[in-house]
Amino acid sequence: MEIKLAKNFGFCFGVKRAINIAESIRGGVTYGPLIHNQSEIDRLKNHHNVGVVEKTSEVENGQNVIIRTHGITKNDLLELQKKEVNLIDATCPFVTKPQKIVENMSSEGYQIVIFGDEYHPEVKGVKSYSESEPMVVLSVEDIDLSKLRNKVALVSQTTRKVDNFIKIAEFLIRNVSEVRVFNTICNATFDNQESARELSQEADIMIIVGGKNSSNTKQLLKISLENCKESYLVEEANEVQNGWFTGKKLCGITAGASTPEWIIQGIIDKISKF
Amino acid sequence: MEIKLAKNFGFCFGVKRAINIAESIRGGVTYGPLIHNQSEIDRLKNHHNVGVVEKTSEVENGQNVIIRTHGITKNDLLELQKKEVNLIDATCPFVTKPQKIVENMSSEGYQIVIFGDEYHPEVKGVKSYSESEPMVVLSVEDIDLSKLRNKVALVSQTTRKVDNFIKIAEFLIRNVSEVRVFNTICNATFDNQESARELSQEADIMIIVGGKNSSNTKQLLKISLENCKESYLVEEANEVQNGWFTGKKLCGITAGASTPEWIIQGIIDKISKF
Repeated sequence: MEIKLAKNFGFCFGVKRAINIAESIRGGVTYGPLIHNQSEIDRLKNHHNVGVVEKTSEVENGQNVIIRTHGITKNDLLELQKKEVNLIDATCPFVTKPQKIVENMSSEGYQIVIFGDEYHPEVKGVKSYSESEPMVVLSVEDIDLSKLRNKVALVSQTTRKVDNFIKIAEFLIRNVSEVRVFNTICNATFDNQESARELSQEADIMIIVGGKNSSNTKQLLKISLENCKESYLVEEANEVQNGWFTGKKLCGITAGASTPEWIIQGIIDKISKF
Repeated sequence: MEIKLAKNFGFCFGVKRAINIAESIRGGVTYGPLIHNQSEIDRLKNHHNVGVVEKTSEVENGQNVIIRTHGITKNDLLELQKKEVNLIDATCPFVTKPQKIVENMSSEGYQIVIFGDEYHPEVKGVKSYSESEPMVVLSVEDIDLSKLRNKVALVSQTTRKVDNFIKIAEFLIRNVSEVRVFNTICNATFDNQESARELSQEADIMIIVGGKNSSNTKQLLKISLENCKESYLVEEANEVQNGWFTGKKLCGITAGASTPEWIIQGIIDKISKF
């Protein structure tokens, strides 16, 4: 069986940057998990003594506190700034961008519409920068027409699909006199998705390596499944099952934006042995 | 044969307003034809002594000069303002709106994209309010990707179809980081178009009354032709041919936004006699 890697996969710029920052701050803590990958978080703990805190109350005076890749809420940031800690911002610049846009647009009186998952940490953070309650939607059906004002600013969670973003923009343009559309979808996500689409068209089994609660990894699985019914999302090498590969000729491999190279390599090594 | 009028047709708010203004300024001149309908322009001349001038040099001192419904260029306006004339602005407020948007957005550094026909007086006027040369496009194919800047403001000629406007917005959202979309398409045009669509589905002949160089009348013809092959654009009653109606059961009638009621009535009277 042949194994083929997607043209683009794995770590994006923002995640590479956040890990480099965390590795350089030995003995620090990240505020919330740095990225959506437990194995990488364990590695940072074991090899670089970087822990995780989940609440501002868990932070100790004098501690190095790293703000994770997906960002945090404005309120949490203000609370941390009040404490005597050394704050290091590892928020991806592609996430800082929609945070700032929402803050500016909201202060200019625009109603904020965010295309994304309201329970995702990135969206919680972006949302918190709006003065008035923003509308967070995953589809056109989620938009409450009766609550739409006349001037709307639209941003997206960085990991969303542009086609769905366009559908929401279209609905707003038809119903609102001014729509400011900020395409805050990250190119790295596009590139990984496009490569997954290409590879899944030729592969007869697809292995998507990544965190099971990572939205961009789940997107890769969804795209793969459109072309290749035998697509599996795995977090670690021990989840890979021998039986999946019976009679398969080409195994495609891709990985979510938060998946470290060493995990992908471990999975390739295991599959190679089948 | 039954005759049925479209639910909405004919004069829009802006045209009714411009004609009322012109009728009240006896002895004035309009700068450019007030609306796209020669018969109405003749009526204004014969019944209200309102003429037409085509150049600023034709304007005489002390004259009442009416700015037509579609607006004029900023340069022409400045030239007229320098002269000793009494300027009366009959520009439709729905046209003044994109003019102001283009002026503001351009001064804020946005590249202006106008969806419309660059040779239409309305677009010439709107376009002239941009500090830098705007991109005027009729379709996505007209957009020169290499000339797109990072911040774009999009407006539309008031009489265009929203579906095509959305296609241009979509292309820009995919390729530009910020797009300010101003839906400046006029509702009156929508309403007339929607009514023409409905009526053309049941009629077996459609008569569209309006100026042959009026873009919104041509749109009505196009929409009618989608459902009813026997759709005719006529400007005056004498163009209507007896033979068209042979064997027809339902004749639908609609009219462009610049078509006066008395012309429509004359055509209904003629058809009724067949």
